[in-house]
Amino acid sequence: MRAVDIIEKKRNGQELSDQEITWIIDQYIQGEVADYQISALLMAIYFQGMTEHEAAILTQAMVESGDQIDLSAIDGIKVDKHSTGGVGDTTTIILAPLVASVGAPIAKMSGRGLGHTGGTLDKLEAIPGFTIELSTEEFIAAVNQHKIAVVGQTGNLTPADKKIYALRDVTATVNSIPLIASSIMSKKIAAGADAIVLDVKVGSGAFMKTVEDASQLGQTMVDIGKKVNRDTMVVVSDMSQPLGKAIGNALEVKEAIATLKGQGPDDLTELVLTLGSQMVVLAKKADTIDEARKLLTEAIESGQALEKLKEFIRTQNGDPSVVDHPDQLATAKYQIDLPAKSSGQVAAMEAEKIGLASMLLGAGRASKDDTIDMAVGIVLNKKIGDEVKEGESLLTIHANNEDVEEVKQILYDNITIADQADVPELILNTIH
Amino acid sequence: MRAVDIIEKKRNGQELSDQEITWIIDQYIQGEVADYQISALLMAIYFQGMTEHEAAILTQAMVESGDQIDLSAIDGIKVDKHSTGGVGDTTTIILAPLVASVGAPIAKMSGRGLGHTGGTLDKLEAIPGFTIELSTEEFIAAVNQHKIAVVGQTGNLTPADKKIYALRDVTATVNSIPLIASSIMSKKIAAGADAIVLDVKVGSGAFMKTVEDASQLGQTMVDIGKKVNRDTMVVVSDMSQPLGKAIGNALEVKEAIATLKGQGPDDLTELVLTLGSQMVVLAKKADTIDEARKLLTEAIESGQALEKLKEFIRTQNGDPSVVDHPDQLATAKYQIDLPAKSSGQVAAMEAEKIGLASMLLGAGRASKDDTIDMAVGIVLNKKIGDEVKEGESLLTIHANNEDVEEVKQILYDNITIADQADVPELILNTIH
Repeated sequence: MRAVDIIEKKRNGQELSDQEITWIIDQYIQGEVADYQISALLMAIYFQGMTEHEAAILTQAMVESGDQIDLSAIDGIKVDKHSTGGVGDTTTIILAPLVASVGAPIAKMSGRGLGHTGGTLDKLEAIPGFTIELSTEEFIAAVNQHKIAVVGQTGNLTPADKKIYALRDVTATVNSIPLIASSIMSKKIAAGADAIVLDVKVGSGAFMKTVEDASQLGQTMVDIGKKVNRDTMVVVSDMSQPLGKAIGNALEVKEAIATLKGQGPDDLTELVLTLGSQMVVLAKKADTIDEARKLLTEAIESGQALEKLKEFIRTQNGDPSVVDHPDQLATAKYQIDLPAKSSGQVAAMEAEKIGLASMLLGAGRASKDDTIDMAVGIVLNKKIGDEVKEGESLLTIHANNEDVEEVKQILYDNITIADQADVPELILNTIH
Repeated sequence: MRAVDIIEKKRNGQELSDQEITWIIDQYIQGEVADYQISALLMAIYFQGMTEHEAAILTQAMVESGDQIDLSAIDGIKVDKHSTGGVGDTTTIILAPLVASVGAPIAKMSGRGLGHTGGTLDKLEAIPGFTIELSTEEFIAAVNQHKIAVVGQTGNLTPADKKIYALRDVTATVNSIPLIASSIMSKKIAAGADAIVLDVKVGSGAFMKTVEDASQLGQTMVDIGKKVNRDTMVVVSDMSQPLGKAIGNALEVKEAIATLKGQGPDDLTELVLTLGSQMVVLAKKADTIDEARKLLTEAIESGQALEKLKEFIRTQNGDPSVVDHPDQLATAKYQIDLPAKSSGQVAAMEAEKIGLASMLLGAGRASKDDTIDMAVGIVLNKKIGDEVKEGESLLTIHANNEDVEEVKQILYDNITIADQADVPELILNTIH
């Protein structure tokens, strides 16, 4: 086989064979096919697309390019959840204990990543004593006994995806649905998932700008899941404004605790119940979405979910008293309100730019070696559709530095107050 | 500027600015933009095309990436001619003295190249004593005095084109009209041409498979020529069968001499007069194509063209007596006829495969270090449309090795005899 013939075939809009896809990924990892050939192939895929079958074979080839986590020693169906990125997205810290509390095993390997706030690992480390370093044996034992453990990712998972992603980033080939879908699916499968729930975000700050594109991405992942024998469900959700009210590490943990107590923001609670229901159905702990949702609602109302959070924290050496006393978590020195400059309805809160403001406060990483300030961030007092009076606080900035003029300017520039607002729907589509 | 933004812009079908094109070519040559970014850009260009203006700016950027030959010390308008590759194409050796004999200066820098036979330089070296190594001063003096000189190319011309071409070859991006057009035009312009005549071949063995594609390529080059101030004319000609009758180095030189004597094959003579007329008009030695054609026809009939060939050979240290005694040129040991296996009309003679047979005899180079056998090759005794009787010679193989079974098999496989043949037209279009 020759790489140039495979590129030409895709360029001409023909379907690649299983052997061709597997061969070119394998040769690429071995250094026998060059970056410049893969980037040409990626651009051809951008224009010509891939069939479901091709995308599934690509996913499998990327899974097989590196280590694969074996979770077979854990009882039950391991459902993993992935979100395509958002701002103020604390869902994992809520979902994991919530879903575990109704008996579905959560064996999650998580990353740190770059972004507006830290990743799930960073947020968990906001809890005093909490460790994300368990041995494989401890990890498996924890899930079998408590139905929940979250650890840092180890091993060399999907190196082909890493190489290809780095290339896509500098060759304008990120924005291809089959490439996005196979990248996400390969990572989840290599991490040992038996079934997968995906939260595809839509909005100005997200990869997917329209519900149609997001739904197509979701459908592609569901189709890939079918082909590779991993049941997959998708929620398409709005990310035109930040999810929930808190953006920042300790602030989001506090919000997660509140949500498990039944006192969370409406949108965050709704999304958690929607995603959680899919996870419970996939784990076969309920037969229908409605039944699953009922189980989860009861788990919150009964305190069972909150108990699971304490059990989870305790198992990973954290201090569970933060659950009852969230004020023990890191608190920033300054709480600075942002007063509305006019009266009206909040009409826009650009999620991405508000996330950027939070990163400037120190909540996130711009590059890999940056350290994170657990205490800082932003708490929204208003969301889109809320009435606001001139001078009333739109949000509270939690800072460890008194000078927040630049941050305020970004926030003012990206919050619109108008006579009337269109309130975006949160759950835009579900696919399974 | 960032390469990824330029790639994305082209991917989205937008027109690149002059600055963007110039910047990315310049950075690529400097090693600041990577192969994998250029190959993605090339694939985006494959799909989205380029405007005339973009192609002209790309051409100019490639010209400026390396040395440029300065022919300003030569009097008159220097017209260069390029053919997009063919089999049995001796046109340069005929055209150069023919056009020079009516006063248009021919200052040609030629290459050797890979292919079915050698390049123009190899063929000229079939003439005893002929040297293609003149100093710049000798070259200029020769053209000013005799209106003709052909030398080997020196200097580092269009390194950007060389780098890009190498990349296109392995990334399935050769077949893009703006990329082909700018590659050809940049080489001619860097070699010092004031005006350009292009012979675009059409046929199974050529880049361009249809008259429409070839005409579009031709039009693109004419348009680029206009933008960069180099008058350009194009002939689209058939290459479904070899041009003329001879394929091989000395054999083609003999055919060139015969053609300048007015005894050449009809198709070769017609193509030479068509291309030559355009060259003479561009050199402003005639006002119209018809007038130019009359001048050239007279130059052949009067012997003036043949005299110019002798003068040309003498000036470059060759023995002009070969013109009157072509049998002095290298002759192969064996002349082996290929008898027709049936009677009928010759319906197909696949140019590319007949060229391959000639290369197997030793007439061409498969790789850069191969040596060429000047004597060997093929002389067609029949062409498409000719009647043939079973047992009659289709062609004569000129070989220095008695065993030509493999060559014969290739030739039989690629010559079709049928009840009736469609005779292809030679000149399919002219564009100016």
